[in-house]
Amino acid sequence: MKALVYHGPGQKSWDDVPDPTVTDPTDIVVQVDTSTICGTDLHILKGDVPTVEQGRLLGHEAVGTVVATGAAVTSLAEGDRVIIPAITSCGRCANCKRAMPSHCLAVGGVGWIFGHLIDGLQAEYARVPFAETSVHKVPEGVTDTQVLFLTDILPTGYEVGVRNGRVKPGDTVAVVGAGPVGLAAIMTCGLHGASRVIAIDKAASRLEHAKQFGAGYTINADDDVDAALAELTDGQGVDVAIEAVGVPETFETCARIVRPGGVVANIGVHGASATLHLEELWIKNITITTGLVDTVTVPMLLQLVRDGRIRAEMFGTHDFALDKIMDAYDVFANAAEHNALKVVLKR
Amino acid sequence: MKALVYHGPGQKSWDDVPDPTVTDPTDIVVQVDTSTICGTDLHILKGDVPTVEQGRLLGHEAVGTVVATGAAVTSLAEGDRVIIPAITSCGRCANCKRAMPSHCLAVGGVGWIFGHLIDGLQAEYARVPFAETSVHKVPEGVTDTQVLFLTDILPTGYEVGVRNGRVKPGDTVAVVGAGPVGLAAIMTCGLHGASRVIAIDKAASRLEHAKQFGAGYTINADDDVDAALAELTDGQGVDVAIEAVGVPETFETCARIVRPGGVVANIGVHGASATLHLEELWIKNITITTGLVDTVTVPMLLQLVRDGRIRAEMFGTHDFALDKIMDAYDVFANAAEHNALKVVLKR
Amino acid sequence: MKALVYHGPGQKSWDDVPDPTVTDPTDIVVQVDTSTICGTDLHILKGDVPTVEQGRLLGHEAVGTVVATGAAVTSLAEGDRVIIPAITSCGRCANCKRAMPSHCLAVGGVGWIFGHLIDGLQAEYARVPFAETSVHKVPEGVTDTQVLFLTDILPTGYEVGVRNGRVKPGDTVAVVGAGPVGLAAIMTCGLHGASRVIAIDKAASRLEHAKQFGAGYTINADDDVDAALAELTDGQGVDVAIEAVGVPETFETCARIVRPGGVVANIGVHGASATLHLEELWIKNITITTGLVDTVTVPMLLQLVRDGRIRAEMFGTHDFALDKIMDAYDVFANAAEHNALKVVLKR
Amino acid sequence: MKALVYHGPGQKSWDDVPDPTVTDPTDIVVQVDTSTICGTDLHILKGDVPTVEQGRLLGHEAVGTVVATGAAVTSLAEGDRVIIPAITSCGRCANCKRAMPSHCLAVGGVGWIFGHLIDGLQAEYARVPFAETSVHKVPEGVTDTQVLFLTDILPTGYEVGVRNGRVKPGDTVAVVGAGPVGLAAIMTCGLHGASRVIAIDKAASRLEHAKQFGAGYTINADDDVDAALAELTDGQGVDVAIEAVGVPETFETCARIVRPGGVVANIGVHGASATLHLEELWIKNITITTGLVDTVTVPMLLQLVRDGRIRAEMFGTHDFALDKIMDAYDVFANAAEHNALKVVLKR
Repeated sequence: MKALVYHGPGQKSWDDVPDPTVTDPTDIVVQVDTSTICGTDLHILKGDVPTVEQGRLLGHEAVGTVVATGAAVTSLAEGDRVIIPAITSCGRCANCKRAMPSHCLAVGGVGWIFGHLIDGLQAEYARVPFAETSVHKVPEGVTDTQVLFLTDILPTGYEVGVRNGRVKPGDTVAVVGAGPVGLAAIMTCGLHGASRVIAIDKAASRLEHAKQFGAGYTINADDDVDAALAELTDGQGVDVAIEAVGVPETFETCARIVRPGGVVANIGVHGASATLHLEELWIKNITITTGLVDTVTVPMLLQLVRDGRIRAEMFGTHDFALDKIMDAYDVFANAAEHNALKVVLKR
Repeated sequence: MKALVYHGPGQKSWDDVPDPTVTDPTDIVVQVDTSTICGTDLHILKGDVPTVEQGRLLGHEAVGTVVATGAAVTSLAEGDRVIIPAITSCGRCANCKRAMPSHCLAVGGVGWIFGHLIDGLQAEYARVPFAETSVHKVPEGVTDTQVLFLTDILPTGYEVGVRNGRVKPGDTVAVVGAGPVGLAAIMTCGLHGASRVIAIDKAASRLEHAKQFGAGYTINADDDVDAALAELTDGQGVDVAIEAVGVPETFETCARIVRPGGVVANIGVHGASATLHLEELWIKNITITTGLVDTVTVPMLLQLVRDGRIRAEMFGTHDFALDKIMDAYDVFANAAEHNALKVVLKR
Repeated sequence: MKALVYHGPGQKSWDDVPDPTVTDPTDIVVQVDTSTICGTDLHILKGDVPTVEQGRLLGHEAVGTVVATGAAVTSLAEGDRVIIPAITSCGRCANCKRAMPSHCLAVGGVGWIFGHLIDGLQAEYARVPFAETSVHKVPEGVTDTQVLFLTDILPTGYEVGVRNGRVKPGDTVAVVGAGPVGLAAIMTCGLHGASRVIAIDKAASRLEHAKQFGAGYTINADDDVDAALAELTDGQGVDVAIEAVGVPETFETCARIVRPGGVVANIGVHGASATLHLEELWIKNITITTGLVDTVTVPMLLQLVRDGRIRAEMFGTHDFALDKIMDAYDVFANAAEHNALKVVLKR
Repeated sequence: MKALVYHGPGQKSWDDVPDPTVTDPTDIVVQVDTSTICGTDLHILKGDVPTVEQGRLLGHEAVGTVVATGAAVTSLAEGDRVIIPAITSCGRCANCKRAMPSHCLAVGGVGWIFGHLIDGLQAEYARVPFAETSVHKVPEGVTDTQVLFLTDILPTGYEVGVRNGRVKPGDTVAVVGAGPVGLAAIMTCGLHGASRVIAIDKAASRLEHAKQFGAGYTINADDDVDAALAELTDGQGVDVAIEAVGVPETFETCARIVRPGGVVANIGVHGASATLHLEELWIKNITITTGLVDTVTVPMLLQLVRDGRIRAEMFGTHDFALDKIMDAYDVFANAAEHNALKVVLKR
């Protein structure tokens, strides 16, 4: 089959590789029908993720069709359409049992293994381990594109931003960073009844996207953010601040703009430490959360997509045939230039 | 009457001062029967709390008897014995309504006002504002000493440590710092069903206290804490780490020793910022909390004291007559030398 | 002043009565600007509420302007516009402290006292006890009609239906009974992210209202409800069933249609006992809740109204001048005939 | 091998039967080392559970040693000692994913299948389906008898009584019925910080057991229960009432004795419906829960047993060799006469 192969920093190609097969009784093999590219894939290509070895097939977000099942698999059959989330869950380790497969102990302590520790989903076919505890059937009447972004970006924004942030009805929520994951948080704030969603970013085009995804207010990060928020919140600060950039400055902004009793939910992937101003924060009754997505809310999000409550397909701004994946990488790597959010790769 | 007066950094005396009177309809005046000294009082005396003006009567922890009531007070009467907690609550601002009087907006945004923004409780009498929403009647059969430490130290350990730390049945909890507030957290971990409570401190005498307050394990902070905890937790880390010191090092220890999905609850009063290693923590699904005590759990703790479930009087290691308060300060300021936890001042 | 006076079963009139005055330091007196009539008022007039004495002024839902304040009142001033909810809260009894003023111990164990145990709000003026812990200022730019229904019907549907029902994102919710309080539950299901809201009623006109208030599905109660729900839920049952009628049959329907692990939230006011089929339900992991509104969510709902997230004014289908209240009662008592939901009485 | 076979109502025998084998890749076979008898087994023998077919091996509570593993099993190996709980969990159906395997859809909608829908554990060997998502390894240093009652009775009392009842620190809890499951609730109330645990039963011997398991107060059900509780709770009622008998009268008692805002947690297995006095309860803000055990708290309880916080072995009052199981049934069926709680069957 054909697949996108990582050949070391800066090097990738669309190569012929061996077809995957069922190796464990709990495996399935899927034909990848629709997939996408993640910002993490770009990080890997920069060489930022040393745990990815050369020769690894990339990709961890796909919708596919089951073509083979292991001997232990009873609830999935050939022909089933399934969502394959970024996170693999064994369903039986201590962390999976506490609904935290992001740290599944059976797959090495980090549930993200596709395109990382095992071959990934930017390929014509893929082996999916622990299939019955990891994948989700696509309901009839729902298209691949509608559910593609439930594999990673949407549950990340929801679980790590909105749910960890404990957004409550009536809340004022600031989302710092309006890239795809920030937009996912913005899109799902309403599920918790947020009253005001405020997007903060430096790029006008991103703030425009934010409005389309449900932000009622936007603030340019180059303006006086603190003053703008003070006016909106009677000087008290926001109820929840969601960090969706991944640099110390934005994290520190979040810790500063939250009201006493509020929550800072960090989604951003950070490469450096931040300063935590405990000399001011010790008294402030705040909560800070971090985390990788667990994808445990996919069944719930799927229900909302099916019922038309969430239009997850809005993330897909550019479509490509799977064998044009090299072009898709170019567009995604230069997203601002193309006004792109996410690409959709179709078989 | 006589009272302990702050005369600027390093200066205090037991002076004659005017008797307090009811000034607002929601006030009461109490005769102070039993009181104590807080570490914060020592900080004030060092000049570390510039919001305390010269001439201020110190103290924010007392049990007393009502001697006068304002016109609006209907549920308290002369002769009632009451617990006067460190935190004043108006009962009607947005923060009090969300059970967070630590940030009561009616008294300036910080609920700690006794011996800080208004005259305090190390005195023969005291005016207590917003009395009906702030004080608690002492049940019959319960002594002053049994409830004295419900004014501050015990709810601080419980609310800011155990409750914010979301200790759950079966949890392994590390308490870093076994001074009085750490001991309060240790003493109340069992209310949430903690399975293992591990005290970590540099002083052997404090670790000895920790055992008496309920710690099943102790680790000297000068030993290899990480190795000791790894052995106890199969290398996963503790479920909850409670910071009860207030310096960057101990906070950073807490953030390091907690398992994925765990909670760091900061109780310590910090004077400097800490480094938050987001480059490691972003993926770790941890929660960090900070906060000042709200004293909203006093009625609950009172119930447990009355039923003999909590022996709060254990904090009182040294008794003094109120007019020997200068001696009491000497002992408390040199607690290690006297093997003291808290002093009890009796009228 | 003029007021609506209850003269015993079946008897009411718009009479001249003495003006109310401040009697306690925590009182205010308000000019009633906008008010409404509740189904409970009709029950009183039928003689169903024997605790209401003859001569009582009725009414417990109003928006007004402060005209006098007691000596203890500091956060409200003459001229302030306030929402006066159905529930009075002393702010200091054990039940108010646990955010349950529906059972405020200071006013007799039931927080509903206006037009019940003290004179009510269908009058030109009214005395409001425990004002600072009971009323809420109306923000600028928000009209009386927008907030009038926050006094009772909207928080009842939300707190007793949606919140007690623990509606979660993705849930399928059945609301049995599409009268005003059922519509209030329907209107607020989205605050918790409900995916599907199903209204069940015998009256086609009510089901039509239900759609306007947000129900995506309607089932006529005379049709085969169980079959219709089984089809919608793959035979599992609904996540939450909200009872909004108040008769045994509808309660028993709710207990039957809920899935294992689901919740039955009873809002209905019942006059008879129901049969609880424990022989079937003991194994089913269900939760049943009951309750009177606490109105503790008024500040939150007010925020949502201000931000345009909830259009509470939709309940007001018929407007009357206050001195035409006898006509308003006629319309409200024959709501079906007039296709009325709630009346709006304006000074 | 030998096993206890059900031959229809009133008929059982210790028979030679074929050895069990691995039939599915997710199965294990265990040697049963220690097991017990449940009240449900007695119900089956009375013919009360028609879903149990003749020829079925009974029993659903055991500790054993793995002797064979299916092809998909990777985390268990021959020789491992395991707890086999009453509930089987596939780990992947909608109900297992929401931590409710009591209603596991993969095994027929009811997670209790051992000795019910498949052959059980009162046998020398047993096949255990969905082993990796159902059983738990026994830690070193912990005996079989210490963990035997974690298979059913202890998690039932904890999950369905204490956890569903949302017992909180400081609570007053009444447990109605002091048989084994009531004792299990009493034993675990302290994990949630209950301040007062009140056992109510008609048998003095059971009340004596209740004290040994942690009840601080006992009331004979033939005395004036309401008056006794009113005195203990200032007339307010208990915070949580746990029903552990299974007849309408005791359920109705629970609904009557709970305070406004309190919880009734039903554990009892009921054969008849109860009357729910909604005409009184609609206003009372109460919560009623029902449920079968999920056994999801076994890992947590295991931790507490290992750390000496729970002495679960206290349930075992009479020991028998496995091949004396007929005698053990006699003792257990006449528990009162023998002052027996649970029997321990040892290989």
